[in-house]
Formats: sequence, C-alpha cells, structure tokens
Amino acid sequence: MLRYLTAGESHGKGMVAILEGIPAGLRVFEEKINLELGRRKWGYGRGKRMEIEEDKVEILSGVRKGITLGSPISLLIQNKDYRIEELPSLVCPRPGHADLVGALKYNTRDIRNVLERASARETVARVTVGAVCKLLLWEFKIEIISHVIQIGKIKIENKDLGFEKIKNLAEKSPLRCIDKSAERKMLAEIDKAREKKDTLGGVFEVIVKGVPPGLGSFMQYDLRLDGRLAQAIMAIPSVKAVEIGEGLINSGLLGSQVHDRIYYEKKRGFYRKTNHAGGLEGGITNGEPIIIRGYMKPISTLMIPLDSVNVVTKEAEKAAVERSDICVVPAGGVIGEAVSAFEIARCLREKLGGDSLSEMKRNYQAYMHILKNF
Amino acid sequence: MLRYLTAGESHGKGMVAILEGIPAGLRVFEEKINLELGRRKWGYGRGKRMEIEEDKVEILSGVRKGITLGSPISLLIQNKDYRIEELPSLVCPRPGHADLVGALKYNTRDIRNVLERASARETVARVTVGAVCKLLLWEFKIEIISHVIQIGKIKIENKDLGFEKIKNLAEKSPLRCIDKSAERKMLAEIDKAREKKDTLGGVFEVIVKGVPPGLGSFMQYDLRLDGRLAQAIMAIPSVKAVEIGEGLINSGLLGSQVHDRIYYEKKRGFYRKTNHAGGLEGGITNGEPIIIRGYMKPISTLMIPLDSVNVVTKEAEKAAVERSDICVVPAGGVIGEAVSAFEIARCLREKLGGDSLSEMKRNYQAYMHILKNF
Amino acid sequence: MLRYLTAGESHGKGMVAILEGIPAGLRVFEEKINLELGRRKWGYGRGKRMEIEEDKVEILSGVRKGITLGSPISLLIQNKDYRIEELPSLVCPRPGHADLVGALKYNTRDIRNVLERASARETVARVTVGAVCKLLLWEFKIEIISHVIQIGKIKIENKDLGFEKIKNLAEKSPLRCIDKSAERKMLAEIDKAREKKDTLGGVFEVIVKGVPPGLGSFMQYDLRLDGRLAQAIMAIPSVKAVEIGEGLINSGLLGSQVHDRIYYEKKRGFYRKTNHAGGLEGGITNGEPIIIRGYMKPISTLMIPLDSVNVVTKEAEKAAVERSDICVVPAGGVIGEAVSAFEIARCLREKLGGDSLSEMKRNYQAYMHILKNF
Amino acid sequence: MLRYLTAGESHGKGMVAILEGIPAGLRVFEEKINLELGRRKWGYGRGKRMEIEEDKVEILSGVRKGITLGSPISLLIQNKDYRIEELPSLVCPRPGHADLVGALKYNTRDIRNVLERASARETVARVTVGAVCKLLLWEFKIEIISHVIQIGKIKIENKDLGFEKIKNLAEKSPLRCIDKSAERKMLAEIDKAREKKDTLGGVFEVIVKGVPPGLGSFMQYDLRLDGRLAQAIMAIPSVKAVEIGEGLINSGLLGSQVHDRIYYEKKRGFYRKTNHAGGLEGGITNGEPIIIRGYMKPISTLMIPLDSVNVVTKEAEKAAVERSDICVVPAGGVIGEAVSAFEIARCLREKLGGDSLSEMKRNYQAYMHILKNF
Repeated sequence: MLRYLTAGESHGKGMVAILEGIPAGLRVFEEKINLELGRRKWGYGRGKRMEIEEDKVEILSGVRKGITLGSPISLLIQNKDYRIEELPSLVCPRPGHADLVGALKYNTRDIRNVLERASARETVARVTVGAVCKLLLWEFKIEIISHVIQIGKIKIENKDLGFEKIKNLAEKSPLRCIDKSAERKMLAEIDKAREKKDTLGGVFEVIVKGVPPGLGSFMQYDLRLDGRLAQAIMAIPSVKAVEIGEGLINSGLLGSQVHDRIYYEKKRGFYRKTNHAGGLEGGITNGEPIIIRGYMKPISTLMIPLDSVNVVTKEAEKAAVERSDICVVPAGGVIGEAVSAFEIARCLREKLGGDSLSEMKRNYQAYMHILKNF
Repeated sequence: MLRYLTAGESHGKGMVAILEGIPAGLRVFEEKINLELGRRKWGYGRGKRMEIEEDKVEILSGVRKGITLGSPISLLIQNKDYRIEELPSLVCPRPGHADLVGALKYNTRDIRNVLERASARETVARVTVGAVCKLLLWEFKIEIISHVIQIGKIKIENKDLGFEKIKNLAEKSPLRCIDKSAERKMLAEIDKAREKKDTLGGVFEVIVKGVPPGLGSFMQYDLRLDGRLAQAIMAIPSVKAVEIGEGLINSGLLGSQVHDRIYYEKKRGFYRKTNHAGGLEGGITNGEPIIIRGYMKPISTLMIPLDSVNVVTKEAEKAAVERSDICVVPAGGVIGEAVSAFEIARCLREKLGGDSLSEMKRNYQAYMHILKNF
Repeated sequence: MLRYLTAGESHGKGMVAILEGIPAGLRVFEEKINLELGRRKWGYGRGKRMEIEEDKVEILSGVRKGITLGSPISLLIQNKDYRIEELPSLVCPRPGHADLVGALKYNTRDIRNVLERASARETVARVTVGAVCKLLLWEFKIEIISHVIQIGKIKIENKDLGFEKIKNLAEKSPLRCIDKSAERKMLAEIDKAREKKDTLGGVFEVIVKGVPPGLGSFMQYDLRLDGRLAQAIMAIPSVKAVEIGEGLINSGLLGSQVHDRIYYEKKRGFYRKTNHAGGLEGGITNGEPIIIRGYMKPISTLMIPLDSVNVVTKEAEKAAVERSDICVVPAGGVIGEAVSAFEIARCLREKLGGDSLSEMKRNYQAYMHILKNF
Repeated sequence: MLRYLTAGESHGKGMVAILEGIPAGLRVFEEKINLELGRRKWGYGRGKRMEIEEDKVEILSGVRKGITLGSPISLLIQNKDYRIEELPSLVCPRPGHADLVGALKYNTRDIRNVLERASARETVARVTVGAVCKLLLWEFKIEIISHVIQIGKIKIENKDLGFEKIKNLAEKSPLRCIDKSAERKMLAEIDKAREKKDTLGGVFEVIVKGVPPGLGSFMQYDLRLDGRLAQAIMAIPSVKAVEIGEGLINSGLLGSQVHDRIYYEKKRGFYRKTNHAGGLEGGITNGEPIIIRGYMKPISTLMIPLDSVNVVTKEAEKAAVERSDICVVPAGGVIGEAVSAFEIARCLREKLGGDSLSEMKRNYQAYMHILKNF
C-alpha cells in the first residue's frame, strides 16, 4: 500500500515528505530526485524565488547504500528563504488564493498563518515523492513526461509526434512546449503579462507510456484510476479542470467516432489504432498511453493587486502583493507527472503485491506472460 | 467520518450500499430516496431497462421510526431484471467499456463476469447514498441541483438564471435542460443518433448552494475538496473530464480577468460579485455556489457494433450488443449531484464533528456566528 | 486491498455486510457461510434468541455460479425477530453495556436507539465476512480454529494436542472445550450462574495454521499484524484483553526462556522447536501457528439487574432486563476466528497482490519457491 | 482527521514523523516534546545507546511563533549514532526479533537491512507524535501517565493511590514504579539479569484522566476506541498482550462482580463507584479513567546469544549480538502514553471537529453542557 504525507511551509525550515510502500531493492539517488526538482523550478515566467532556492533533496531514511530498504522514505528539502518567524503579518487576502477562506476556516486574522502552507511551494514535496515513484515505474518500463499545450490563449498545433520526440522537444523548451511557433507566441504573451503586471494560466498534458493493462478497478468508485488521477491533478494548486484522453471533444461526438476499436495480432496481443480514451476504460488502464490534461487558471498573486478587504479593519483595500510568478504551467506539468507517478505506482503495487523489487518483478512477469497468452 | 461501499451486479439480485457516519436524529424516508432514484432513471434517450426497473429502495438498517440512529445505513434496491445466472457468456468486448481490460485483469474469458459490475447500473447505489447525504445537507440549507448544458454538439446558451429558476426548469425538462430552444435541438440529435444506432455524450453541471466557507483543506493533497469532487465526478462511468467553475475558459485568460475580487458588507460579511472560481479557492469552499461540470463521452454500447475481437478465438468480430441507452447525460447530472452530496457532507462532518444532528447543528451555528463576527 | 463494512440492528430487518477485495475465481457457497453462522450460534449457555434465529445468509452480489467475480460481496442475514419499530423504549442503562455512554454520545433518552446497534448480534455480519475470508485462506492451506480455554474460574489443562486434535475435540464439545474434565466443570458453572441469574466470561484461543512467513510489516505501526489482530479481537463485544502466544507468562520470564531459537533443515527450511511468540515476530508472521487469545468479561445483561439510573427521571432504578445469554465464550472464539481470518487475508492480499485467485496463487507459489531456496 | 507516519532507521540520519490534523492555535514547544523524549530514554536497565543519544527534537513545520498553524507538524530527531552506511552486514538472526522474518519478507541476506527499521528506536518518533497530542489533550484537561506494575516476576502491590500520587511517584522512580519495596526487588532482578547476560520483560499501565464520555464508537468495528488502543499498544515492540481495565481478572468472575453500577448526582451527573471496565464500555469512553496495560516480553537481544542459523551458509550459529538494553518496561509505559494520546486525540477530533483550538473548545464546552443537562 503506497501512501504519503507532506509537511512544510513556504518560508519555513523546509519541505518534508514521508513516502511509504516503496519495495526494498530499488536504486534511489538524491541526484535523480534533484533532477526532477530542477525540472519543476525551471521555466520562463517564474519569479525570483526560483533563483533563491536550490531545491536539493536530502534523503533522511529508507535508503542504504543507494538501495531502498522497504522502509518509509523521508525526504527533506531545506528552504534557503527560511524566515517564517520574521515575516510580517498580512491582512489583505488575495482573490483566487486560499487567503480569505483559510483565515476564516482556521480562525486567524494573520493571513500569513494560512498562506504559508497553502503556497504552491508545497509541491516540491510532491515532486520528490513522484521522483521516487518514477524510479520504481522505470523498472517496469513505465515512463512519464509532460508538455505545455496552451499558455494564455496560445495553443500548440496538434501534431502526433510520438512519445520520444515530445519528450526531447519538451525538455529543451523554456516552456516545455514542443511547437516552436507556438512557443514564440507564448513567450511574447508572458512578456506582455509581465508588463501589465498580470498573470497567465494554461494547459499541460501528462503522457504515461508503458503502463500494462489492468491497473485500477471499477469494483468500487475509489479504486478507479481515472478518479484517482483526477483527484491528484485537480489537487495541484491552480488546476481547475482535468481531462483524460480527448474527454472534451468526445463529449460532442457520436459513440462511433469516439470508442477505440479493438484489434488483435498474435505478436502484439490486443491493441488499438486510436487512443481517444487516453489509456483508460472503465477506470482501468488498457495498455495504451495514459493521457491526462490539467487546466490551470492564472496565478492568483498579481503585481497589480485586485480589490480586496482588510480582514482586521474591514475596509476596502488592495490585495497583498507577495513575490510570485507570472506563469507556472510548465511547472504544473512536472508536478502533474509526479502525482500521476504516485497514483500509477500505487495501482501497480496493488496489482503486483510484493515487498521487494525482485518480487514485484517476478509477479509482473508472470502477469505479462498470462496477458500474452490470454 | 463519512464513508460508503456499494455492491451489486447489473443483473444480480440487486444493488446494495452501506453508508456510515450519518449522525443520529436525521429524518430519512424511503420515499425521499426513491425520488432521487426516479430522477436518475428518467430522461429522453434512456433504454428499455429503465422501463423494467422500478428502482425502489429498501432501508435495511440505520433508521428507526423514520429517524437515523447514527448507525450505518444499508440500502437495497432489488433488480427486477435479475438473471445473472442464466445470462449467456459474452466474448466480444465493447470498445470504450471495461470489457476487455476487465477480462484481462480478472483473468476471465467470459466478459459477462466483468461487465456485470462495471455496468453503470451500479450508480443507483451511489444515488441512494447521495440521497441520504442530501437530506443531511438540507438541514444546513445546502442544496444541490444539476442540469444538462450540452448534448452532442448542442450547447445551451449561457444565461444567468439563478439557482431556483435553473432548478425548476431542469426538473421539468425531459433532458434536464433549461434552454427550451437548445432542448429541442438536443431531442432531435438523440432521435438522429437512435436512427443511426449510435450514441451521444454531453456535459452536465452540478450546482451546490448554501455551502458555508471553510469546507475542505489545503493542508494535505487528499483533503482538498476540489480534488475530492474531481475524483467523485470522474469516477462516474463515461465521465472523461471535470471542470470546476470556469476552469476551461479561465486557463486562457489573464489573472485580472479571472479572480473573484473580495468585498465586505457588515450584513453579508465577505462576498464576491463574480464566481469564476466555482466556489472553491485553495481547495476550500469560499461561500459562493460550488459549480462543477462533468464531460461524458457517448455510451459505449452501440446498436451498430464496432470492430472487436473474440477473446476466445482471437478472430475479428463485431462487439457484443447489450441492451443500452442512447444518451445518459441527464442521469449523469443526477449521479453527479449524489456523489457531490457525499463529498460535501463528508467535509461538513470533518468540520463540525458531532454524533447527532442536534450536536452538528449546534457546532454549525457556533461556527456561523464566528464567521459573522470575524 | 481488503476492507469491509457491516450494518444492521439487533431487531432490525437484518444484518448486512459488504466485503471488498476478494479476488475473482474463488468458490463461495452460502452453505459454507451458514456453517460458520451455525458454529457462532451454538454453545451451552446461549439464550432464547439463538432458538429464534435461523441465521441463514443470502449472498446478494459478488458471486456468479458459485464463483466470485472480484466484485464486492454483499451478505444479508435476515432477522426473524424483526420488531425494532415496535419495541418499547428503554430508560435504565445496563452497566457494562454501551447503553449509557451511547445515549450520552448520540443524545437520545431512548436507550433502545443505541443498544440495537451496540448489540453483539452485529457479529453475525463479521462471521459471514470471516467465512468468506476463510474460504480464500483455505486455498492457501491456511486454516483457523478456536477453542475455549477458560469459563469463569475453570481453566483447561494445557496439553499440547496438536491442531487437528484440538479442532476435532472443539467441534464436538458444547462449549468448544477440548478438556472433558474441565468441560464438565464449566457446564456446572454455567448452570450455577443461570440459577443465580448471573453471567459468566472466559477465555478463547484462536489458532491459525499454515500461514507463510512474511505477512504483516514493522515498517509502520498500523501495518503490524500483531496490532491489527489485537484491534480485531479487542473489538469483539465483551473482550477486554488480548494475548498473542504466551504473552502473559512471557512478561515474567527471562529472555533466554522466551525467545524461539532458530534452526534450519534443508527440507523444512528455517523452523522453531517452540512457539512462545505465537507465530509473530516484529509484527510479522514467522511461519509458526498464530496463537491469539481473547479474554471476555461476563455478559452485561443480568437477569438480576444491577443498580442503575433512569435516564429520564434520574431516579435510581434497576437496569433494564433484555433477553440475553449466560455465557458466550464459545461464540467469542468463532467470532475471533472470523475477524482473524479477515486480518490475515488482508495481509495476504497485500503480500501477493493479484486480482484473480489464479494470479494470487501464482504469486504465492513464486514466493514460496523463493523462501525455500533462500 | 488525525493521522501520522514515521520514518527513520536506528543508525540512519534520524527519526522523522509527520503528524496531521492538529488544530491551529495550540502552543507547541520543542522543550515539551524533549521532556517526553527524556522520559522515554530514562530508566534503570537501559543500554549504552541511551547515553549516546541526546534525543532532541526539531520541529520542521506546522508551528510558527510557538503556535500551531493547523498544518502538518513534521518532527526530526537526529541520530548521534548515525553510521548505517558503515555498519557491517549481519547474517545470524536474533530469535524474537524481526530479523529472520524481515530477511525472508524483504528478500535480503543482510539482516542489517531489516533490523534498522524494525528497531525499537523508531518509537522516539511515536513519542514525539504523542507529545504533541498530549499538549492538545491537556487543553481539554485530559492527562496521561504510566507506571510499571511488573518487572520479571516482581509485581507491585495494588494500592489505590489516585492519579496524582501515582504520577508523582512514578516520575521519581528509576523504574517508574510506585511501590518502593517492589522497586528494590525489581532493581535487583535487573542486576541479576545483567549478570546472566539475560533480559527481562514486565508490565506497564497507562492511565488517562479527564476523558469525557462519548469518545469512540460501536457503530463499526474499526471505530471502537478499545480496539484502536489495543492496536496501538500491541504495535509497540515487545508488547505481546494488552488489557483494558481488569480484563484478565474479570474473565474469571460473575457479571454481578464485574459491571460498574451506575449512579447519579445532580452535581456530578452519572458516575460509577468502581472502574473495573477501565473507562470503556461498548468501545466508548464512559468518563471514568481509561486504564490499559501492556505486557512486554523480555528484550530479544541477549548478550549471551541464542541458537540461530547463518542465513548465508545455513550453518547453525549463535545469534548476532547488538548493543541493547536489559529491560525497557519503563520506556514501554512512556511509549504507551504516547500512542494512547494519539488515539484519544484522534477520537476527540472526530467527536468535536473544528479547525482551530478555539473552535474545538467551543464545541467541547457545548457538548459538556449537554452532558451536564442530559
């Protein structure tokens, strides 16, 4: 049973995660996790905080001589910008952020007390958790990438480039965008927003390759992998919509246009020629790549602040201005990869059982053998 | 702690649910639950099964003299069409359904063994659970409705009619559609699809009124109400995308166009003039109506079946034809209400604690008092 | 992931359970479950209710043609003695029962509203759940029995009879007691208590044979099988102490007297000559039989009622007299088997994964092979 | 919803815990937690490790200016004795420890890889979690203490000293023993065991004062507080039996001797003159002190090692000798306090809800008011 908790405030000592259920025998190195933290930090449109923070993980437990022990893996990312004790109180909530609702819920008039945890900085912890899960998935040839398909009003042109090409192009782009022409326009949009002291949202797409059929289950609503992924993606700050496969377009089409016909070849087993379903049928993986999109609203902290109310005086005032980003959609994708990695690894653990990587692999191979000879 | 499990197969003896965590002292009648079951069944485009089934619930436990005891509420809806033992085996999986992946996962060549549970008939159990949750929410003046905003390519025109008007219009429409002109076109679309032996999807919208600020939490990813609602809605069969508020449009706009500015009046407390966020900020309710949309693909069972493969012979064959519906978007909305009701009731229980309705109410009133004098 | 919920009141329509996570492909028959229900009902010292109730289970879902589908199994045991709506209210709480604390917690002055769910009749649902788990365990040659080792002050003489002998003797005894001489005295004790209109407790022992090493885990406190079993046994009504292996005696001995030395033979693998640990080391099974004991207090409902207080008038009164048993320790053992079966099956599912029995078995055999060649 | 995870190996960098669900507004200081860590470390019969380790906690998150934020509290205790990377491998499992079963389960022949997490050092993390929970409980006048009632064969004489006296005497005793005469004999027993290079177990008792009636629930087996406490106590390393109230003795008595009769006085409300039930009826607190006992086997690591087998060569060898303690029953009691504190705090949160301490208190006072006027 894979599960995790995170802790940490934006300007606290650091971000912490405990990830439980990773089998014994997996190679885990801090460098690998740091790569993911670097991918999260990077991207045009990020604010000054990204320059301050180094985002290096320290593995506190669960690993010995570079190999997991099967014990909980605890991960610490220290904040360079640790000053939560000195930071001034804040009384004008930013619309779109958790500031006001958090103050009401937790009964505090110093919004600092809630925004520190509500901050998207928490996602560094989720990214470290996801990085470890990715290492596990990699042992089963499951790979996860993301790219940006929209920023502001600029959308990429849909070209079916294939997994490797998308991966390579995305990693090289400052916006994780695989369409050079769209990228140029996106960069310009971000510059424009910066000038206006405004912010931008957009859409990222996560693609998971190599997932075997049969992960997730329709037997109970909370076992469906589509539902779990939707929760994971929607729980990323700023995400307000989630789409699996061609979910939006499909809602306007006929059944005969949508469903991925089934074919069989002895060598390949069952396969599809299309993947409108985004790799999930009935809440279960069907062996095609999982495709999931997160729609992000623009960042809530604007340099030209919006109308707000001082929670102490109740007078109209402008919202607080915290140092922030202009656009974080590329980071959204990297976080999307991480939380997807966790959910898929969780289903894989449920399917395969096992306490060591070798045991998981043995069970995996036996399952793949059955599938092949089904 | 509110939780539930459902059980039952499409042509089994019946559908069962156990709902735990409803406080003592709530009036619960079978008639109220049956009303919701009726709303689920109804709607233009439904198939013959809907005529066969009566869908009457029997409360097996948890209620005495019409009042809950605080004990688990178990609910049974008997299937009129009980014949799972006689139904023939099925070997040609329907694309889009869980048929093939279920057969592979559970290692059976009789697809009947998986489709019976994977069937959307299971949602009658979720609707009964949601119906009880609605009764609880009603005690706190929280009300949930749904309507259909798109079927096939036909979308309603966006008019801001207000909660009561939407409710009344939706309840009277055979498609739960509040736009008469769109409704006519939708009905025609469904007729066309029926003629072509094809199916249609669409979009439903769930609106929740009266939710106090402060439900859900950003403290851990799995406590966020946006994520929980996304899971609940995505876990409805055929839903492939979930949107909160104006999540899709907002991803293309500037921050200054999106975030709901904050105002204050002594009598009303904090309030907004817009609700682009759909009632949720930072994963927490902000006191505005919750708005959530489910995007449904067309039904997977077509009367002109799609290409498939016989799982026994491995020969190409057409998919199985099971009796089915043409369009279930109105039902999707009713199910969406039910699962949203559960998630909101769950957050309300976490916020208020309490073992009896009177205790919950006392804690609620104290909280509302604090909010008012914040 | 194995989990279950039960529902139902003592004089309600019936007891219900939903058990989720049983793999597809397991033979499950109502007769097998009814056998366990019969074993629970039986035993010298039971009250009149046991004569009224037939305790026949109806499987409502999860099974087709006698084989599990992998879907949730729902189980209904109808109450013959259904009259919860007519039963009079009750205002004098019975000491030792949940009557008073339940009334306070759920805020009701009619104790009937709480005792109906707090009644030990709920354990019929747990027994059905356990019966299904036993059928699963049986496929892995894991068998569970129980016997009574003490009633009132009468204890059996400790003789190491071996699993099969204990099983056979227990099944034939009206008190599930394997020591004929002790049994006679126990029967006399019960008769004496009946005459005095008093009640008796005692101790049962559950023995689990054939458990492979490696179930449960020390990696997190809530994964330990010793803790899970302790919770399961303590949560049986009337149980007030739980012991694993020779836990009580061992607390007074030296380490050198207690720990089960380790030996090895090529054919047997690692083994022990003693089993003071009761089959669990570090919260994990070690391959020796699991031995767990439940210490039951005497039944709380006495025919000569104890001092109590009328919760309405607050006047001193005698406690209510409900029809009840004199001694239920044999039933306690049967319930102990059931809840142990669930916990062990749960750990087995976590260890082996798999969605079908054949997949579980394949993974099991591979694991056993590794153990053998460790 | 209160929950926690711990991480860390015995000779790793440190022990980590994340505790979630503590309300905002609670004073939490590292000194308070360190006091509990000190209490755990202390006690006659402890080994050299206790001298090496300072056991100072660092709060990494969840607290600002000494006040909780409602966010997850993460706690780090660095190990002075950090050398997991250099420690030699270990091939002779110690009987009674998780060594052998862990090696088999996690498929490693270096037992070091399992004993590091299986070590009782992990309980420092549980103690920090419990220390925070104690601070929360203290706000509701709930206090938890422990004392040692048996070491080896030496038992204290049962004298009803009352909570405060027990607390004071226990805190001053090197064995947390309130009976001076027994303490002398216990010290001698420990010295004798040390000479023999043997180890000793014993029994601790945890007492919880000030718990309101109504925590826990009989509505589902896993909601019962007796079951939860049993799991928590049994999951402490070396504990092999758990007793609530006079659970052992009661199993041999008549109902009329056991059940705590109910009385009422206007000023006190309902009360009992005895507390044989140990404060729990039907799995729910009844307002009397909770009394729970843990029976610990002797430490598994002996300085004169027991028969074992080299897991690599399969030759008979003596078990590994790791530096260890002779007797840890006093520490067991302190750990018992901690895990009980968590379980009671968890039930309190479920009962009261609330996100801030002030909200919890308000709901608590309203509940106490109702109880008073029941």
